[in-house]
Amino acid sequence: MVLRMSTMLLKTLREEPVEAEVPSHRLLLRAGYIRRAAPGGYTWLPLGKLVLDQVTRIIREEMSAIGGQEVGFPSLLTREAYDLSGRWTEYGDGIFTLKDRRGADHLLAPTHEEMFTLLVQDMTSSYRDFPLILFQVQTKFRDEARPRAGLLRGREFLMKDAYSFDLSEEGLIEAYGKHRAAYQRIFERLGLEHTIVSAMSGAMGGSASEEFLAAAEVGEDTFVGCTGCDYAANTEAVVTPVPPADDREHGPLTVHDTPDTPTIASLVDLANARAFDGRTDWTAADTLKNVVVTVHHPGKEDELLVIGVPGDREVDLKRLDAVLSPSTATMFDDFASRPDLVRGYIGPQGIKVRYLADPRIAPGTAWLTGANEPGRHATSVVAGRDFTPDGAIEAAEVRAGDPCPECGTGELTMRRGIEIAHIFQLGRRYTDVFKVDVLGADGKPVRPTMGSYGIGVSRAVASIVEQHHDDRGIVWPDEVAPADVHVVGAGKEGQIEAALTLAAELAGAGLRVLVDDRRNVSAGVKFTDAELIGIPRCVVVGRRLSDGYAELRNRRTGERRDLPLAEVTGELVTAAPSRPSR
Amino acid sequence: MVLRMSTMLLKTLREEPVEAEVPSHRLLLRAGYIRRAAPGGYTWLPLGKLVLDQVTRIIREEMSAIGGQEVGFPSLLTREAYDLSGRWTEYGDGIFTLKDRRGADHLLAPTHEEMFTLLVQDMTSSYRDFPLILFQVQTKFRDEARPRAGLLRGREFLMKDAYSFDLSEEGLIEAYGKHRAAYQRIFERLGLEHTIVSAMSGAMGGSASEEFLAAAEVGEDTFVGCTGCDYAANTEAVVTPVPPADDREHGPLTVHDTPDTPTIASLVDLANARAFDGRTDWTAADTLKNVVVTVHHPGKEDELLVIGVPGDREVDLKRLDAVLSPSTATMFDDFASRPDLVRGYIGPQGIKVRYLADPRIAPGTAWLTGANEPGRHATSVVAGRDFTPDGAIEAAEVRAGDPCPECGTGELTMRRGIEIAHIFQLGRRYTDVFKVDVLGADGKPVRPTMGSYGIGVSRAVASIVEQHHDDRGIVWPDEVAPADVHVVGAGKEGQIEAALTLAAELAGAGLRVLVDDRRNVSAGVKFTDAELIGIPRCVVVGRRLSDGYAELRNRRTGERRDLPLAEVTGELVTAAPSRPSR
Repeated sequence: MVLRMSTMLLKTLREEPVEAEVPSHRLLLRAGYIRRAAPGGYTWLPLGKLVLDQVTRIIREEMSAIGGQEVGFPSLLTREAYDLSGRWTEYGDGIFTLKDRRGADHLLAPTHEEMFTLLVQDMTSSYRDFPLILFQVQTKFRDEARPRAGLLRGREFLMKDAYSFDLSEEGLIEAYGKHRAAYQRIFERLGLEHTIVSAMSGAMGGSASEEFLAAAEVGEDTFVGCTGCDYAANTEAVVTPVPPADDREHGPLTVHDTPDTPTIASLVDLANARAFDGRTDWTAADTLKNVVVTVHHPGKEDELLVIGVPGDREVDLKRLDAVLSPSTATMFDDFASRPDLVRGYIGPQGIKVRYLADPRIAPGTAWLTGANEPGRHATSVVAGRDFTPDGAIEAAEVRAGDPCPECGTGELTMRRGIEIAHIFQLGRRYTDVFKVDVLGADGKPVRPTMGSYGIGVSRAVASIVEQHHDDRGIVWPDEVAPADVHVVGAGKEGQIEAALTLAAELAGAGLRVLVDDRRNVSAGVKFTDAELIGIPRCVVVGRRLSDGYAELRNRRTGERRDLPLAEVTGELVTAAPSRPSR
Repeated sequence: MVLRMSTMLLKTLREEPVEAEVPSHRLLLRAGYIRRAAPGGYTWLPLGKLVLDQVTRIIREEMSAIGGQEVGFPSLLTREAYDLSGRWTEYGDGIFTLKDRRGADHLLAPTHEEMFTLLVQDMTSSYRDFPLILFQVQTKFRDEARPRAGLLRGREFLMKDAYSFDLSEEGLIEAYGKHRAAYQRIFERLGLEHTIVSAMSGAMGGSASEEFLAAAEVGEDTFVGCTGCDYAANTEAVVTPVPPADDREHGPLTVHDTPDTPTIASLVDLANARAFDGRTDWTAADTLKNVVVTVHHPGKEDELLVIGVPGDREVDLKRLDAVLSPSTATMFDDFASRPDLVRGYIGPQGIKVRYLADPRIAPGTAWLTGANEPGRHATSVVAGRDFTPDGAIEAAEVRAGDPCPECGTGELTMRRGIEIAHIFQLGRRYTDVFKVDVLGADGKPVRPTMGSYGIGVSRAVASIVEQHHDDRGIVWPDEVAPADVHVVGAGKEGQIEAALTLAAELAGAGLRVLVDDRRNVSAGVKFTDAELIGIPRCVVVGRRLSDGYAELRNRRTGERRDLPLAEVTGELVTAAPSRPSR
């Protein structure tokens, strides 16, 4: 394959595109890989399409290697199956819905659990038909509130979604393990440094759901590690260790006048200045902050909820949403309508709204908190004595230095990453919805159990750029580069012709070649473009052509050396990555 | 590649699926290639996805060979560009539209002329950037009123759309010619017998738009050939030769009482029985039928139109729609609201509604037609004397035996076909809309001219089946078959093991192999399934395994012969199609 820059639809940009916030977005625009076509919708230009195809090929190969069978579902589906599963309502504004010319409700499917389940119900009847791993590589649509960062969070994107069907827990665990290993191989081939983190706390257990996060400063996900063990989890999955019960004796609840204390800091200052309860060592961690949120339940009425957290921590809305999912929460601010909730002075004692507390608000602990009267707070408000929460909630922010929930001795560290994949032991949620049963080996019906496994394909492309670039441009890993070699004909008499001859020779040897044969562009611009575009290996046919030499450049290391033209092909064929199939 | 039927998601159906009307739909369902997932939306099962990938690969190869560059646009677009081009309104109910969470109008693009034009405007600036051929292989959505016939007319389907951009008419004609030749190669490789027909009459000229029709009884398109020359056109494009002017003297217009003549036949009978104007040789061709239709102009008010055709012909609504496009027409039936239009007795003389006549209603011709009074008709109603049409219209049905508009001596023949491709010299319609100008070689701005070229990819799959099947199942052409060889392990002791060994050997020699290694299925069922699935070559490892022999079966010819097992691979490698890349 020879791609000629003189005829390609390729224009590099000198200026930084104003709309681009993150390096991958900026570089993919500047180097001519993508263009914006709609809010959160991007066009793959010829170079970009080649990269996308390479990434897709690698994913397909590894999915086939674990026995995955590729299928292709429509994107546009009728509402019924998603009504039965409840997801039509759960997704709410997050999916695109439309009516056809007859007024029938449709959706652009965000994922296809329902349809795969119905397909397996249709196509199987006995235990002999299992296990099954099915996948598709498909355009997905989500009505993101804030599409951003180019390919990292779009409204239309390419995804590989896979589903496993097994008849036993052991089977599901094996399928899950196969996907986990396949994903590790995929991301290794894509050159993506990644961490696998627990994605879920709570009842389903830590291994039932994991995310693959590509380390990147621009990542939207914060994940934790531990200084003492190999624990890794996204912040939504971090479980706060419950402190031992506090069995000290506390004095009686005492109400204090606390005018002009709109913030925790001002309250702590006042408490120390006036030596509440004889103490002058009050800190924010001694206070109890009560945050009012409105919980939106899909398809049901909103509900008020008060969340209690230690005053030195904020409520993390992402963690809160994860706990409440599929419901969502927003901050409540219509205090005029609720005189019982005294803004800035709310306390959990005698509260008439559902009240959930951080696990640190353990029975017997005493707090400085609001007195439910304007300008007054109370001390020695004791959990289990003066108030009893309706339950515990994991909604407080996680911070570096927090104790590790796994080993208990290490401290948490914080990193940022991009979610590039998610694997999940779904169990029988969907086979229960559609009552899928097949004949078991013992003659009795058995209900299949499922796993779901997704990779963000277009997002992976952007993640690769986040991890593989420098200040001059992109530095593609070998296997995903749009070409193996970039041949630059510097421009003087005969150099472009020689570059084209070399390109043909390299293509004949099985390499994919991009050749810069533009006649009206200076050598300097060509070198700058080559670094921006980021093909791993570059051959310059330039001033030493007259001696029969070309210059080899390694984009990653910056190494340059001259080589006789006749040896270039042999050298590069040896250096090129071996590809199982192309 | 070895596909094992024991583990594949594959279920053949014995019974004819009730929902399937046409052979391709029936066979693709029965043989396990597709399943219905939504109205007009189909899931590609593993075998079907393999066929689709083969077809797509062939199209990509031939598009690359003419210098086409592949890109990928989003499907979900905002309304603006389609408003500017007028297509948002023109498509009307034919496209799916939706609002996002902010209420902004979006569409699922049916084709991408607007977006390709805008992309070229963004990415080019000078004559040096031309010519360009860009294409994509993309899922398309259309809100078909009547999705039918499986993959032949769906609401979600795969399409290859290409666009050429040139700076001169000669360039456009060359790009058009390249696509025409590439499409001929593509359909030859797909095994699709096809005819290229003129798709457009009128101002743009016959060669500016052509359709590729795959001959098939179930085709929705009727196209004509000629017994005397190589003329071929779809019926919408057939131009009725205008008869020479009739300069005979006609008698005066005479009104006759014609009670109980609701049909042309009853009118002709009465005219002959009463010897109107002294004649007893009246035929339907002597009468003038006037049909009232409501024309729906996109975005404007409806309009009434009366169409005059010789009484021996019907109005062909498809031809009418083609002439009126982007407007559409429906039969008018609210005669109560228009007393001036006397149902069954309408004549063109003195009519107050826009009146367009078939070209055969030439100046000087005399007709038996309605007298615009209940129960009365008139004779000797002469065009140009008693009435003057507001214009001519090509809306009458085309019939076998009609004179050829090309050579004038031959007669038209009629065939049915499936539209599998359409190539079209668009000109500057879209570059005018978006005011795309680039710097010409002479330093002056020049506006690119475009061609658009589409292939229905999923429809091609169905068309192949329409042309390649028998009463036992599908018979895939070599290059699109989901596998090169189908190895059947008949089932007795050792036969399945031997089949698997042979399959591995064949795969090692580069062939794609489907192996029937099911243990709980009889040999008879396996043979029936193999014929239904339709892989071109089958190897049965059966009763002669003990002698070291297998049986080769040719699906197309039915030929069977025994061959030593050791010679099977060599034989099949020789027979397999050569593929430029896989």
